[in-house]
Amino acid sequence: MKAITSRDNAGYKAMAKLVASTAERKRRALSVLEGAHLVAAFLDSGRELDSLMVSRSALERAEVAALADRAHPAAVTVISDALFDALSTLDSATGVIAAAPTPEGVAVPANASLVVLLEDVQDPGNVGTLLRSAAAVGAGHVMLSKTCAFAWSLKVIRAGVGAHFALNIVEDADLAAWLAAFRGKSVALAGGAKESIYDLDLTGPLAIIVGNEGAGVSESLMRAATKRARIPMPGRMESLNAGVAGSVALFEALRQRQSSADKRG
Amino acid sequence: MKAITSRDNAGYKAMAKLVASTAERKRRALSVLEGAHLVAAFLDSGRELDSLMVSRSALERAEVAALADRAHPAAVTVISDALFDALSTLDSATGVIAAAPTPEGVAVPANASLVVLLEDVQDPGNVGTLLRSAAAVGAGHVMLSKTCAFAWSLKVIRAGVGAHFALNIVEDADLAAWLAAFRGKSVALAGGAKESIYDLDLTGPLAIIVGNEGAGVSESLMRAATKRARIPMPGRMESLNAGVAGSVALFEALRQRQSSADKRG
Repeated sequence: MKAITSRDNAGYKAMAKLVASTAERKRRALSVLEGAHLVAAFLDSGRELDSLMVSRSALERAEVAALADRAHPAAVTVISDALFDALSTLDSATGVIAAAPTPEGVAVPANASLVVLLEDVQDPGNVGTLLRSAAAVGAGHVMLSKTCAFAWSLKVIRAGVGAHFALNIVEDADLAAWLAAFRGKSVALAGGAKESIYDLDLTGPLAIIVGNEGAGVSESLMRAATKRARIPMPGRMESLNAGVAGSVALFEALRQRQSSADKRG
Repeated sequence: MKAITSRDNAGYKAMAKLVASTAERKRRALSVLEGAHLVAAFLDSGRELDSLMVSRSALERAEVAALADRAHPAAVTVISDALFDALSTLDSATGVIAAAPTPEGVAVPANASLVVLLEDVQDPGNVGTLLRSAAAVGAGHVMLSKTCAFAWSLKVIRAGVGAHFALNIVEDADLAAWLAAFRGKSVALAGGAKESIYDLDLTGPLAIIVGNEGAGVSESLMRAATKRARIPMPGRMESLNAGVAGSVALFEALRQRQSSADKRG
């Protein structure tokens, strides 16, 4: 374990550059994880960190010391609290920040059980929330169109709370092309649809499509889907938050699957 | 309709003070609404604006001109685009900002059909999302404990997208005291609970309790509830976003109610 006290240290400067620049993170294929929970979620996925910096005072916490022990010794650096504060992306410094290889997405099989498709979802909080819900229901794959918020941005990673490392995340995906090969049902969420998600059989291989916060799913992607469905809103609202809409649909799919498994069992 | 071009105008200064200061909004019992959609949602609720300021260029849009027509003429002021930009709370100025009397919450009846209780929900986005979902399912009432984010803050109003005016919102509520008098079921959402929300009968008068983002529902409020229930998460996540968790429970209650209404009908 190294210890550094100068902001001119090459490792420190490299981390600061990663924190500051999305382009740098993309170029080096690294993501920045701040906080013990995110770093632990990454290590739980069986991958190795590129580097881990912990503040001197954070290292006194058993949770943080244990994390530092789990990383490769050469990857760990202890820095002063002042240096950490200068690096931190959060209001209350957590004392733990890491650079981790950004996992590459792999092709989603045409018979996948549950896939989430995001088309032009712009808000990082919504993308992160949808990743979190997808991981929670056990969907294995999330595909994002080119115009979605960057899935590995600091904000999306923060909102994902570790979901990123429990999923296969495919960015810049051609959603319509993938749907054409998919051998399951696909449901585009659309406020104006006639059928409700509660009217549909959501068991079996399923893709759920969530669209842009303002415009919803595009007409062309709607046509590529086998169904369009609304989430019923008897109250006086025109629409739901996109993160909520996708999550409600995912949990309804989960409910139906658990209920049909109960009946079979 | 007045027109002003100077930032020394008393009406303009009063609006700027409202935008800048939560304390001022609380003191005058006014909320700030930015954007045509929010202002329309407020007017749709049958109430009168305190004041409405529109930028000269926004007034050229039919939607905005129609809004200005719906407000009391004495309450409407046209301001220059530069003055509007200085006032705006958003990155892209909408050209429409209003001060509206903050509706006062009224006592929630002990036999209410569907009530949402928020305990120490801190994130303004989560509070706004939960209000939006509550309004969407047609829950009439949302009660917030003293330590929740202020329901009428700019961020919460923005995330609510008009839900505020379709609900009875009661802040600084003593949730345990209200539950003691409630003549329905109350379900505290808790990750570690044995029963799943899908195992429960959520028809009839119901209160759904959502807790703090980190700590969940407090033990004392858990004890005041008739049930605690989890949202099942077969995937590798420890928890859901609080806004999502509450929304999934609300929509499950809606699904059960619609399904039992179908059976009766």
